[in-house]
Amino acid sequence: MKDPCKNSALLTDLYEITMAGAYYRCKKFGPATFSLFIRKYPPNRGYFVSAGLEDVLEFLESFHFIQADLDYLHSTGLFSQDFLHYLSGLQFTGHVFAIPEGRIFFKDEPILEITAPIIEAQLVESLVINFINLQVSIATKASRCVYAARGRSLVDFSLRRTQGADAALKVARSSYIAGFIGTSNVLAGKHYNLPIFGTMAHSFITSFDEETDAFRAFAETFPDNVVLLIDTFDTISGARKAVDVAKEMLSKGQKLKGVRLDSGDMAVLSRDVRAIFRRAGFKDVSIFASGGFDEFKVADVLERGGEIDAFGIGTKMGVSADGPYTDIAYKLVQYDGRPVLKLSTGKKTLVAEKQVFRIKQGDRLLRDIIGLRNEKTDGSPLLKTVMKNGKRQNPSESLEIIRERFQKEFNALDDDFKTLKNPKLFPVEISCGLEKLQNQVIHEVMEKELGES
Amino acid sequence: MKDPCKNSALLTDLYEITMAGAYYRCKKFGPATFSLFIRKYPPNRGYFVSAGLEDVLEFLESFHFIQADLDYLHSTGLFSQDFLHYLSGLQFTGHVFAIPEGRIFFKDEPILEITAPIIEAQLVESLVINFINLQVSIATKASRCVYAARGRSLVDFSLRRTQGADAALKVARSSYIAGFIGTSNVLAGKHYNLPIFGTMAHSFITSFDEETDAFRAFAETFPDNVVLLIDTFDTISGARKAVDVAKEMLSKGQKLKGVRLDSGDMAVLSRDVRAIFRRAGFKDVSIFASGGFDEFKVADVLERGGEIDAFGIGTKMGVSADGPYTDIAYKLVQYDGRPVLKLSTGKKTLVAEKQVFRIKQGDRLLRDIIGLRNEKTDGSPLLKTVMKNGKRQNPSESLEIIRERFQKEFNALDDDFKTLKNPKLFPVEISCGLEKLQNQVIHEVMEKELGES
Repeated sequence: MKDPCKNSALLTDLYEITMAGAYYRCKKFGPATFSLFIRKYPPNRGYFVSAGLEDVLEFLESFHFIQADLDYLHSTGLFSQDFLHYLSGLQFTGHVFAIPEGRIFFKDEPILEITAPIIEAQLVESLVINFINLQVSIATKASRCVYAARGRSLVDFSLRRTQGADAALKVARSSYIAGFIGTSNVLAGKHYNLPIFGTMAHSFITSFDEETDAFRAFAETFPDNVVLLIDTFDTISGARKAVDVAKEMLSKGQKLKGVRLDSGDMAVLSRDVRAIFRRAGFKDVSIFASGGFDEFKVADVLERGGEIDAFGIGTKMGVSADGPYTDIAYKLVQYDGRPVLKLSTGKKTLVAEKQVFRIKQGDRLLRDIIGLRNEKTDGSPLLKTVMKNGKRQNPSESLEIIRERFQKEFNALDDDFKTLKNPKLFPVEISCGLEKLQNQVIHEVMEKELGES
Repeated sequence: MKDPCKNSALLTDLYEITMAGAYYRCKKFGPATFSLFIRKYPPNRGYFVSAGLEDVLEFLESFHFIQADLDYLHSTGLFSQDFLHYLSGLQFTGHVFAIPEGRIFFKDEPILEITAPIIEAQLVESLVINFINLQVSIATKASRCVYAARGRSLVDFSLRRTQGADAALKVARSSYIAGFIGTSNVLAGKHYNLPIFGTMAHSFITSFDEETDAFRAFAETFPDNVVLLIDTFDTISGARKAVDVAKEMLSKGQKLKGVRLDSGDMAVLSRDVRAIFRRAGFKDVSIFASGGFDEFKVADVLERGGEIDAFGIGTKMGVSADGPYTDIAYKLVQYDGRPVLKLSTGKKTLVAEKQVFRIKQGDRLLRDIIGLRNEKTDGSPLLKTVMKNGKRQNPSESLEIIRERFQKEFNALDDDFKTLKNPKLFPVEISCGLEKLQNQVIHEVMEKELGES
């Protein structure tokens, strides 16, 4: 199924096209390798979760300019007819070497490297960064929520406040990869085949003359799927009314599935609500909590003894509120066989085609080495060839497989690197071969461009 | 032109559809009024800029379920055939009363109120919130950048790190409303008819054997549009090479338009670069700065004497990094003629159909009053009927008109309310009529639901 937000070759920065125009005029068609990596961790992060590669591959495989795009480019007056004609036949014919979705990776490590004729590799920059930046940010944030919830179920509730419709879909997918059990987002459920969840909002309650009438109306409509929202007026009084409805349901052979709390001190309220249901003989009514949750609030409520079975996690996960972007970059590291880099202050890049080697002890992740693509070193390689000459090497992976891959590797990462605040930094080394080449290129560039030696 | 991210009726939370199912079963088809408002300011904000209404109206006007949507809903096993048949013929037939785009508004004020048969008004909730939340967040953030730049030009550079493709388009539009002069996003340029900007990235420079070769290649390809990126290796040495190229261009009757700085201390570097060009006789070469700018960094660089003519403002504006969402809510305030509210802790709502009255002194904004829709009070009303019985009352407004409207009202807002840190709170009062009705409804609800009087 196609992504509902149709990919467009024009969804790019103008400079990608002007650069392409200049490459074209200079007849620069040599192979370029660009490397995508994240320079630093957002606050309190000590790892990243790989996500977004599927969209990258789908985009690259279908990359082309339609006539309306070319007409628009022509209308800007910037480009020659020759160049626009060249663009009309352009496809992506390069290779992609990448970390599969669902794996853990660390800062400075290449997430993917694209090797293609420079015009192709350049034109796709903006959208490749966009896909990976968002989905890595969200999968990472969501994994922190999963970690904080210690086994409780989490559902994505973020649709209403994600940054746009496209983000809403990608958040549902990324959070599912990280271990959420599903989403409230119906289109995401349809599009990605995810479990969907949801019952009622406060408006449903207040539209009835009385709260109990609303509870009953819902129970009569969906007897197998009743989770009553009980905080519209007062959570405790709402819980008592929910008990009444649970009894009415029982008399008809039906069962109240759960209640939802959406405001107040949920550590305290959830215990009180649990006690009210227990005393009434309802021992297995689920308590669902929502309202401003992120990993910190989940951890806090559970530490203070909250008796909550599942959380709806909304906005703060859906926009990765405390880290709404990463310092991600897509940098030219090799052109026509020559390793290259820039020296801009605070923004150095690692030259050449690379690989990440992961060293484990049993299942435990010990350390990574960033090395040259074909270097012999310890550890097992993380990046794989996923596209060759513009063709995917394998069909799309199922979300279930990606999700299991994540869970397995996340379990293998020590808690020290996963603590919610100030995690320990995972050791990532630079290989001898890469270090040597890097220093050599820096030396050459400084000599050539700055006259220093 | 249609939004490239196609609106779908399934882009909603599941609970909207289950509630609709229960309303349908109870034959609840009465008119409901929902009010959209923001409960508090994100950090350091003291006002909001209205944006996103155009998308809301387009969505409502075309709202319908397609057969594939209904098939999917059927496959969930949750809904009756009767109800799905009802949905198949559903359109939005309600009224929308809203603040026009480009106006300033404040917390607690209704941004829009929708009155429609409750099922219709309920089903559109998630996406209406999503449209307004994102675009208000971005327009507000962008307006702060414009304020900080004191007349310098700003260009949206955020595409690569916005939260998705849809957000990238909306950020370009919202920042243009707030006074940006254009965007690097080519599709946004095409879609919204915005000026587009861009020349080259570091990869362009490093793909050539020498920096000067790259400068020359670009100048030869686009002689009328040359802005050279000079920080790839060292900004000062890059500026000297740019002077060489400017001289070569001059000898051909061409003119170097500008240079771009993307790293380092840009207050200092921009002065040094300016001096280098002045000494070489190039007095009107523009200095363009980019790299991690937001309103705070713009203000800082200008306060420290940066000689910068234009800024590229990227990620931090494009995700509204220090306030990536608002505490926005869409609440039922009236059902079938009866004013309603919820009492949930910390989440009270203002009942009934409302209007905002703006009181000015000359052009200066003095204070606002939130009142009942038809109340007689001072001030001129802010919300207008923009849709009636599902039909727009007017054609789409041009971005130029919205942008001018913003500029005019922003100028009329005192600096105290616009300072970047801890702005003064603009006075917003509740009218006598609304206050009285509000207290009366709270009293009635507490009596009825909690047995308190």
